[in-house]
Amino acid sequence: MAAALALAERGRATTAPAPCVGCVIVRNGHVIGRGWSQSGGRPHAEAMALAEAGGAARGATAYVTLEPCAHDSPKGPKCSSLLIDAGVACVVAAIGDPDPRTDGRGFAALEAAGVEVVRAVHADAARRSMAGFLTRKALGRPFVTLKLATSLDGCIAMADGSARWITGDAARRHGHLERARAEAILVGRGTLEADDPTLDVRLPGLEARSPARYVLSRDGAVPNGWARLSSPQAIAELPGDFLLVEGGAGAASAFLTADLVDRLLLYRAPILIGGGCAALGDIGLADLAAAHGRWRLHDARVLGSDRLEVYERVRQI
Amino acid sequence: MAAALALAERGRATTAPAPCVGCVIVRNGHVIGRGWSQSGGRPHAEAMALAEAGGAARGATAYVTLEPCAHDSPKGPKCSSLLIDAGVACVVAAIGDPDPRTDGRGFAALEAAGVEVVRAVHADAARRSMAGFLTRKALGRPFVTLKLATSLDGCIAMADGSARWITGDAARRHGHLERARAEAILVGRGTLEADDPTLDVRLPGLEARSPARYVLSRDGAVPNGWARLSSPQAIAELPGDFLLVEGGAGAASAFLTADLVDRLLLYRAPILIGGGCAALGDIGLADLAAAHGRWRLHDARVLGSDRLEVYERVRQI
Repeated sequence: MAAALALAERGRATTAPAPCVGCVIVRNGHVIGRGWSQSGGRPHAEAMALAEAGGAARGATAYVTLEPCAHDSPKGPKCSSLLIDAGVACVVAAIGDPDPRTDGRGFAALEAAGVEVVRAVHADAARRSMAGFLTRKALGRPFVTLKLATSLDGCIAMADGSARWITGDAARRHGHLERARAEAILVGRGTLEADDPTLDVRLPGLEARSPARYVLSRDGAVPNGWARLSSPQAIAELPGDFLLVEGGAGAASAFLTADLVDRLLLYRAPILIGGGCAALGDIGLADLAAAHGRWRLHDARVLGSDRLEVYERVRQI
Repeated sequence: MAAALALAERGRATTAPAPCVGCVIVRNGHVIGRGWSQSGGRPHAEAMALAEAGGAARGATAYVTLEPCAHDSPKGPKCSSLLIDAGVACVVAAIGDPDPRTDGRGFAALEAAGVEVVRAVHADAARRSMAGFLTRKALGRPFVTLKLATSLDGCIAMADGSARWITGDAARRHGHLERARAEAILVGRGTLEADDPTLDVRLPGLEARSPARYVLSRDGAVPNGWARLSSPQAIAELPGDFLLVEGGAGAASAFLTADLVDRLLLYRAPILIGGGCAALGDIGLADLAAAHGRWRLHDARVLGSDRLEVYERVRQI
C-alpha cells in the first residue's frame, strides 16, 4: 500500500476533480502492474495497472488507495468490473470512495463476484493523500494549508517589515515543493502590494507546476496573472482541491477566524526578533480553553538549521 | 563518565561557588567508589569516591567530570595528591579546571607521579553540567536561562493578559524541575504585580529547593521574601551560578538586549492565539542578518501535548 500511495503522488495536483489514486498489482510476490490517476483523473489507477499486468492479473492481488469505482462513464469502464473481468483474486483498499456513485458499491460488486476485499489498510495515510478530494466531497470546498515562516518568538518580519530572510534555503525549497502540491495559492492584498510575490515553483523540473494565484481582497482590481477571492468563505469556487495560503498575517488570520485552515505548515528559524510583526492578528478566540484541542502535530522535521512542524486541524469529516 | 555526570547532578544547585563534580572509581570492571561534590563544594567528589574505595583504589581508574584540584585548602587536601597517594593508575577527566589555582596543575601533578591522564571525555556534557561554574569563572556572572511558554504563534498570553493555561501539566512540572536546578529566579516588576507568582518548586521532595526570588526593577520596594535586581548587568551580585528568568516579556527582552541569556527553554503548546501578548518586545536587533547564528538547538522533546526546545547561545567562553 505504501508503494501505491507513492505512485498516487505522481498524479498530485493534476487529477481534480478526481482524486489522485495509486494501484499496485502483485502476484507471487512480484509486482506485475502499477498505475496512478492520469491528468484529469482518467485513466484510473486500476485501469492503468491492469493494462500493464495483462493476463498475469488472474489470481493476483490489487492494492489500491481508494475503493474501485462502481459507475460507468463515457470516459471509461468502472474499475470494479475491470478487476473482476481480469480475474483478480483479492483487492486491498485503503479507504472507501465517498462519491455517491460508488460509496461501497465498488466493494459490494467485488465481493458479489467472489473477489476477496480487505479494507482500511493505511487508511490514515490515504486520507492525507486524498485530503483535497475528501474535503471537497464532505465540505464542498478545497483543503486549505496555511504556511507560516517565523522566528522562535513567532514573528514573520521585523518591525520595519523586513523578512528576507528568516528561514534558510532548505525551508524555502520545501515551501516551493508545497506550492507544487497545490492547485491554487493565495496571499492577502497587503502582501501582494508590499512584496509583489511571484508565488511560482522555483524547483528544477517543477516550474510548470506553479499554482493559480489569488489575492484575498474584498474588491478592487488585481494585477495580470492574478485572480481575486472576495473572502475565505468563497473558496468553494477555487479550482482544484488544494489551496495554499502563504500570508500575510491578515490573510492567515481571516482564514483561521473562519475556521477554514485544515493544515498548518510552521517553518521556524532558530532566531529571536523581538517586537517584530506577529504571525497572526486576532482570530476570534473567546478564551484560552477554546484554543486547545484544535491542532494535532502530524510531522516534525529538520530543514537545514530550521525546523518544520506540520499540524492538522482536529476535525471529523 | 556518564555515570560520573549523573552523580554530579546530586550536588546540583548546592555546591556554589564550587562546581558540582562527579567521580566514579572502577577496578577490573567493577565500580568501587562513587562521589559527588557535597553541599558548599566539600568534600570534593574524588575524596568521597576514594574514601569508599579504600585500599581497592590501588591500580584503579578514576572517572571524574573535572580536573582534580591542585590546591590545598583548610577544608581538605588537594584531590590530585589524594589520587596519587591512593595509587590510582589512571584518571579519565571530562574537562580542565579553569580555577587559576588548578588550571592544568592537577593533570601535571598526576602525570609527574606516573598516573596516566586521559582528557576531554564527554567534554560537552561536562561543560553543560558545570555551565554555571564555568560562566562565573570566565565572565564573572551566573549562567542565565530564559524560560518562555508560548502558543505556536509566539504569544505568552491572550490580549487581555490571560495565560492560564497555555502549556499543560507535564510542561509546567518540567518548568518546576528547572527551578530546582537554579539558585536564583527572576521576573519583571509587571509580572510580579500582575501575577503575584510564588516561583517555588512544587514537586514532591524538592519543595526545599526553591531558588531565591528576584524582581527586575530599577527602584522601589519589593515584597517580603523578594530581593531586587536593578538591571540585567547587575547579575554578577546574584547568589549561586544559575539564574532562571521566568518573564514577562519586559524582563526577557531586557536580558536578551543585554546579551545575557545563555540558554533558552521554549515550551510550546499546540494552540494558536492570534493578536495576543508577544513573548518579546524590542531586543535591539539591527537587522535580520544579525539575528542568525546566535542560537543552536540543543534538545527537543515532547512533554504531554506540548513540545520543549532548548536552545543555547553560540558563544566562545
